[in-house]
Amino acid sequence: MDDEPATGPWERPGRFVAAEADYDAATWVIAGAPLELTVSYRPGTRWGPTRIREASHSLETYSPELDRDLEDLAIHDAGDVVLPLGNLGQSLARIEAALRRPVADGKRVLLLGGEHLVTLAAVNAVLDRYPDLVVVQFDAHADLRNRYLGEPYSHATVMRRVLDLVGTGRLWQLGPRSGLREEFQLARQEGRLFHDVGEGAEALARELAGPLRGVPVYLTVDIDVLDPAVAPGTGTPEPGGPDFGVLQRALYRLAHAGAWVVAADLVEAAPPLDPSGRTEVVAAKLARELLLAFSREVAR
Amino acid sequence: MDDEPATGPWERPGRFVAAEADYDAATWVIAGAPLELTVSYRPGTRWGPTRIREASHSLETYSPELDRDLEDLAIHDAGDVVLPLGNLGQSLARIEAALRRPVADGKRVLLLGGEHLVTLAAVNAVLDRYPDLVVVQFDAHADLRNRYLGEPYSHATVMRRVLDLVGTGRLWQLGPRSGLREEFQLARQEGRLFHDVGEGAEALARELAGPLRGVPVYLTVDIDVLDPAVAPGTGTPEPGGPDFGVLQRALYRLAHAGAWVVAADLVEAAPPLDPSGRTEVVAAKLARELLLAFSREVAR
Amino acid sequence: MDDEPATGPWERPGRFVAAEADYDAATWVIAGAPLELTVSYRPGTRWGPTRIREASHSLETYSPELDRDLEDLAIHDAGDVVLPLGNLGQSLARIEAALRRPVADGKRVLLLGGEHLVTLAAVNAVLDRYPDLVVVQFDAHADLRNRYLGEPYSHATVMRRVLDLVGTGRLWQLGPRSGLREEFQLARQEGRLFHDVGEGAEALARELAGPLRGVPVYLTVDIDVLDPAVAPGTGTPEPGGPDFGVLQRALYRLAHAGAWVVAADLVEAAPPLDPSGRTEVVAAKLARELLLAFSREVAR
Amino acid sequence: MDDEPATGPWERPGRFVAAEADYDAATWVIAGAPLELTVSYRPGTRWGPTRIREASHSLETYSPELDRDLEDLAIHDAGDVVLPLGNLGQSLARIEAALRRPVADGKRVLLLGGEHLVTLAAVNAVLDRYPDLVVVQFDAHADLRNRYLGEPYSHATVMRRVLDLVGTGRLWQLGPRSGLREEFQLARQEGRLFHDVGEGAEALARELAGPLRGVPVYLTVDIDVLDPAVAPGTGTPEPGGPDFGVLQRALYRLAHAGAWVVAADLVEAAPPLDPSGRTEVVAAKLARELLLAFSREVAR
Amino acid sequence: MDDEPATGPWERPGRFVAAEADYDAATWVIAGAPLELTVSYRPGTRWGPTRIREASHSLETYSPELDRDLEDLAIHDAGDVVLPLGNLGQSLARIEAALRRPVADGKRVLLLGGEHLVTLAAVNAVLDRYPDLVVVQFDAHADLRNRYLGEPYSHATVMRRVLDLVGTGRLWQLGPRSGLREEFQLARQEGRLFHDVGEGAEALARELAGPLRGVPVYLTVDIDVLDPAVAPGTGTPEPGGPDFGVLQRALYRLAHAGAWVVAADLVEAAPPLDPSGRTEVVAAKLARELLLAFSREVAR
Amino acid sequence: MDDEPATGPWERPGRFVAAEADYDAATWVIAGAPLELTVSYRPGTRWGPTRIREASHSLETYSPELDRDLEDLAIHDAGDVVLPLGNLGQSLARIEAALRRPVADGKRVLLLGGEHLVTLAAVNAVLDRYPDLVVVQFDAHADLRNRYLGEPYSHATVMRRVLDLVGTGRLWQLGPRSGLREEFQLARQEGRLFHDVGEGAEALARELAGPLRGVPVYLTVDIDVLDPAVAPGTGTPEPGGPDFGVLQRALYRLAHAGAWVVAADLVEAAPPLDPSGRTEVVAAKLARELLLAFSREVAR
Repeated sequence: MDDEPATGPWERPGRFVAAEADYDAATWVIAGAPLELTVSYRPGTRWGPTRIREASHSLETYSPELDRDLEDLAIHDAGDVVLPLGNLGQSLARIEAALRRPVADGKRVLLLGGEHLVTLAAVNAVLDRYPDLVVVQFDAHADLRNRYLGEPYSHATVMRRVLDLVGTGRLWQLGPRSGLREEFQLARQEGRLFHDVGEGAEALARELAGPLRGVPVYLTVDIDVLDPAVAPGTGTPEPGGPDFGVLQRALYRLAHAGAWVVAADLVEAAPPLDPSGRTEVVAAKLARELLLAFSREVAR
Repeated sequence: MDDEPATGPWERPGRFVAAEADYDAATWVIAGAPLELTVSYRPGTRWGPTRIREASHSLETYSPELDRDLEDLAIHDAGDVVLPLGNLGQSLARIEAALRRPVADGKRVLLLGGEHLVTLAAVNAVLDRYPDLVVVQFDAHADLRNRYLGEPYSHATVMRRVLDLVGTGRLWQLGPRSGLREEFQLARQEGRLFHDVGEGAEALARELAGPLRGVPVYLTVDIDVLDPAVAPGTGTPEPGGPDFGVLQRALYRLAHAGAWVVAADLVEAAPPLDPSGRTEVVAAKLARELLLAFSREVAR
Repeated sequence: MDDEPATGPWERPGRFVAAEADYDAATWVIAGAPLELTVSYRPGTRWGPTRIREASHSLETYSPELDRDLEDLAIHDAGDVVLPLGNLGQSLARIEAALRRPVADGKRVLLLGGEHLVTLAAVNAVLDRYPDLVVVQFDAHADLRNRYLGEPYSHATVMRRVLDLVGTGRLWQLGPRSGLREEFQLARQEGRLFHDVGEGAEALARELAGPLRGVPVYLTVDIDVLDPAVAPGTGTPEPGGPDFGVLQRALYRLAHAGAWVVAADLVEAAPPLDPSGRTEVVAAKLARELLLAFSREVAR
Repeated sequence: MDDEPATGPWERPGRFVAAEADYDAATWVIAGAPLELTVSYRPGTRWGPTRIREASHSLETYSPELDRDLEDLAIHDAGDVVLPLGNLGQSLARIEAALRRPVADGKRVLLLGGEHLVTLAAVNAVLDRYPDLVVVQFDAHADLRNRYLGEPYSHATVMRRVLDLVGTGRLWQLGPRSGLREEFQLARQEGRLFHDVGEGAEALARELAGPLRGVPVYLTVDIDVLDPAVAPGTGTPEPGGPDFGVLQRALYRLAHAGAWVVAADLVEAAPPLDPSGRTEVVAAKLARELLLAFSREVAR
Repeated sequence: MDDEPATGPWERPGRFVAAEADYDAATWVIAGAPLELTVSYRPGTRWGPTRIREASHSLETYSPELDRDLEDLAIHDAGDVVLPLGNLGQSLARIEAALRRPVADGKRVLLLGGEHLVTLAAVNAVLDRYPDLVVVQFDAHADLRNRYLGEPYSHATVMRRVLDLVGTGRLWQLGPRSGLREEFQLARQEGRLFHDVGEGAEALARELAGPLRGVPVYLTVDIDVLDPAVAPGTGTPEPGGPDFGVLQRALYRLAHAGAWVVAADLVEAAPPLDPSGRTEVVAAKLARELLLAFSREVAR
Repeated sequence: MDDEPATGPWERPGRFVAAEADYDAATWVIAGAPLELTVSYRPGTRWGPTRIREASHSLETYSPELDRDLEDLAIHDAGDVVLPLGNLGQSLARIEAALRRPVADGKRVLLLGGEHLVTLAAVNAVLDRYPDLVVVQFDAHADLRNRYLGEPYSHATVMRRVLDLVGTGRLWQLGPRSGLREEFQLARQEGRLFHDVGEGAEALARELAGPLRGVPVYLTVDIDVLDPAVAPGTGTPEPGGPDFGVLQRALYRLAHAGAWVVAADLVEAAPPLDPSGRTEVVAAKLARELLLAFSREVAR
């Protein structure tokens, strides 16, 4: 039970904990996309990937609830996508391009944002290989506006654009508690929306055992789905959300139902907005639990 | 569902979101009272009105739980009452004078504090027109001391002074979890005190349907009634309170029971004490929900 | 109900609220041990004793839930143990030596950390007089590693060293949600471990009424057992813990079952890591509730 | 010498102090442009205009060094330009369009950023009316890259674009202490660059009395020209700059030499990066001194 | 040169470093007055006395520039004056009353604020015994308004009230760089005002060797006289002030000229406004230097 | 002048800017030693190496004052030395061991602390190869105590231990403004001490051209030598130090005099204590200037 001896004198940070696999050997690829161009209230999410990786080293690699360990997985940390400053179209194109290869190689991808628009690039990268993709969104906001301050691409419109891509009935929204009246109407008409994260997970789990059995799933987790007490470091905190355990159990419920997550993201963590530094730890633990819960090779 | 086009090139902040009505047309008047003279532990509440207004613009005007929208109300934001520095008596007099007119004009008032003593001025302004007023207090502290450090007027004595004004049986206290033994004895003897916010709301709702049907209600919400995890930016945080959803549902319960709120306040938010900036968002959302829940003209 | 008149013009802080008794008259002795030498992630716990004492003055001395008042107890605040910088062995020896006298004099001790290693010194000081000691640990981490980064003494190994001292079956762990797989195996084999704080308290309460009736108890509370939303100021925050009320009720459950707490500690509060300042208030309130709940002379 | 009586009970913030003139009467127009799209290191400058206005109310309107008072000027605060999120081209176009009218009407403009790219929009708006414009830049960085991370428009290329517009010999750079070797070569070849702000002001003042007599001047002040000790709230702090008094005297020197400032900006203040809150006060005082120093109607 | 052995195991903070003398033996008495009632911009100065004392323990007791040591002085720390919340008149009366005794006993007093109004109480306490008192003020603000927001007693009027007490020609102001035009006119008419701290100290030193030889001096140091870069934790930071060394040398100049300081204060330090924590260290070092520089018994 | 195209899509932080050379090719080796065990006041310096590297990427690699560029050097970043928690002796041994190899290989070393004790380990590693070493210390504190709180090894005794190693006359101290009287006496007796950094550099430069020509120099820069306004993020800030430019010019003076720096360190930067984030930028710029100024291969 002793920790292993430090074999050499040197250590260097910069990777997610236990993400030590080479690309070829990896079943998971972690990538960062520090995009931050359409934030409307408070900025800081560009520091998400760096700080989440750093905070991951304050956690154990073992999850007692899942009884699984990251060290039993083969995870590659590819680093961050290089983004051109101030150029939104080009930024999305680069993220999409960077993710196409691991998706084509059959690896699962965990993308660390950055603002929620990165989801649009990632879904585009995934759809080619998995055209019947179902998108599951944990979020405090519906993000279904058609335009926001005149623009079609923003953190407030991103799921509308995703809906355009995947089509009616293939978007599940768990947790939204903020939006326009029209967004809630559209959400219920074109997809499935649950204010309560636990109810949503239960309903989805039932469909995963029925009509949705075997479909590939893209999972996008906007950290603001959590109550701001739990994760205050985010650009548009929305009071009234679930605590960490509720979200954790919802993820376990989906995993237990056999959800086949081909790619996932974790977005909108803005560490500089939380001087207590716990938001990055919350994000890192969510990332760990996602990797462990949705890894088939360690399932029992 | 597109957001409206920006009609002109300019925008200027300074009002609560959607509080764009002229005084004459308004049914609600929002006013700020940045009083801060008797704070015993940590100061900062004088920045409450400014920061709450600012944070309100990070929220939607629509409440999905209530299915109502601020844009369907006529709200006037009167600005802040000008207060003489260091002069408590004169400050309370100015707040009272400033609120008399909208009360006399039959408008409902939402007062943004500032420290809890502003409630005393506001209740004085309201009592003339509504002598049978019932006061409902959400608060972590009983605030029923007779004197505090020798002084009869302070944030720790304010509800004792209010009790002097409204009389036995007309003060409901929901949430107190801190005070002297004598304060809790007095609270139970002269009014109604519930440690549990939900139980208190349920009990009050039943009376609003019975003996208290039709009485005018003054609602004072000290933001420290919430657990400090939810709203850390307050002068005397008291661990062990409810989360946002519990308070939200208690307010809905009263609204559903037909509570006739003629005036309300939201006090003790001290934004500088919360560098994560979420306390001002919590306060702004509470203000939005208060405005929507207790507006009869949008009730369905 | 008026507060007492200020008898003289001067006041000086520096003691825990209401801890005004002389050593001889005291039944409780409060001591600080600002040790911080093996912290692995984020430092700051050396400021624990100073800030907890300071924050205690923002609280009432009366607990409405317990209906007891600190002013009815005889508490002596001995100040902080003087620690030699950078010398771990000598630091632990000094803490142990400083605590031996009050333990020998039959007083109960409340130790304010500092990092969790202070528990090892305190248990050593207590064991001589109470060789059949049972240790009850509230903590997010198992702290049962044998060595950590090669060292046998650290905040991550402290409870393994305590287990070495008290022996199989005498360590109860309530709340651990982080550790190595081997730590959880050892915990269940050599002691009792409950992920859920409430379940653990219930199980322990039943044994306190049975096989453990009358045993002396050492209670160690690592503040990180609470969710980081509640107490963010700690070195290794671990998301997913209980809120304040759950911990409070667990302590009450043990007190109600007659737990004979001969010494207790409250460790790992790191106030500088929480700029909102609520962690030190949470710690101070926990300290107050510990003192009140486990004082036999005020029990009814 | 008494301050004026508060004539009414209400006050509302939102304008720069003493900027109470109507547009028609104004000789100065203050405008905000909270642009933040190409920031490379730490974000926050979008809060510049709001916080600078707020902080201006903590200052007197009178400058003892200049013996002038803002209340003797006619200043209009137009509010902030409405910007489309994430759309750089459209944002610059809107700023330029918004500024054209006051420039055409012969008013002087003070633009509050936002990031340094707003200068490009403003210079474009001014050039039509003043084709012989000379641009004077106070800045820690040369900002003369041709492209940055592949993009032609960014805070690191803005003065290269301005140089493209105004042409060789019409750009004066005071204070640069950071850049590529090639930027410094270009700066000296195509314009004038002074590491020392005071020397630069002296040299420019001499030319303003000679070959540059009577030319219209655009003044751009990047707040990072100051040492980060003085103004830490900025995105790319560069140690080694002048203190406040040195910059203040340099501005006075230019004013004394008769500089005809037709427009000016103050950019890159990022208040959230400075929790002490002094950067916004420094910026507000610089704005006040700019308005007073370069107002001909109060000159003596 | 070894530091002394820790004689006992316990230590308790709460006093200024080396202020261990009993009242009777003391030549200096340190007192705190955490008054904060008329602050106009940002609060926090009530934490001044506590944090300055705490920070003093991070300093050495020896000043290499003065070659003197606090341990060679007899200093008594009396604690803080107990103040009634929200009651300005009573607060000032209590401060004055508390200081009368040490002044009457011929001790020198160092008062730690709190806001600048405490100076008025202290000067009142001192004048009885020293009717020919000269007041020397280091400050960024003139503080000579007659009324501020209608009130005669505030941090913006305090030196006008002091001027009323001591009379024409007995107020020296060093450092003011902010105020109304009328305040500067009055200052020059009724007293002496120097924008430059060093020039002012030089001029005063010359008079101390001449017409002012032997007069008792009251020294009030508003920490905002320093540039906000040096001491950002203050309520109304005013950019453009001197650095620490300039102020230090000005104090030495006065001491060298034989200034007979019978009482002094250090006001407006607001530690919570400076999360870097250096303002309280700056204040503590100023306090140390004041005590050492103006102590005749250690003069050589 | 365009920046180079991003050749691939990925980037990963973790190294000092431009430190891309392999060990074999390198002339400089950068190493981190996040030691923090004897800090007496405020902790945080263990985050020094990580944050300084991160901040280095906000700077240019080119120094306009020196007209040199890091990209023209061969720098290897070895990462951080792995340290056993809480074990001081072992920590120092590991640092010394880790540095021996590059010193033996004739490479120059830049060590990033961590607390000042790392200097002792580094000097030990260097002395074997360079027995005639002269140590030049920039520091606010003399650090010459023999013991501190009873311990011979601490940040307050480190230079006494270094003096023991190098012997009389081989320690130059530039900047000390805090210490015991005995430390200053010893400093002047056994070495050379200059309160004024510029004077000290001038005196040393003259000796480097004379009696000290050609001696190997170890340069230790405690960041607290700078005024806390410039670098507030340090454990024991000492007001009254030089600004950045003064220190920069002192380093240039030594370089110009031909100082042969065989190893250097930069210690006591504690980034978490400076929420403005500029201390790490100041440290990174100092590191860049050190590397450039004392690199013979780019000298002209």
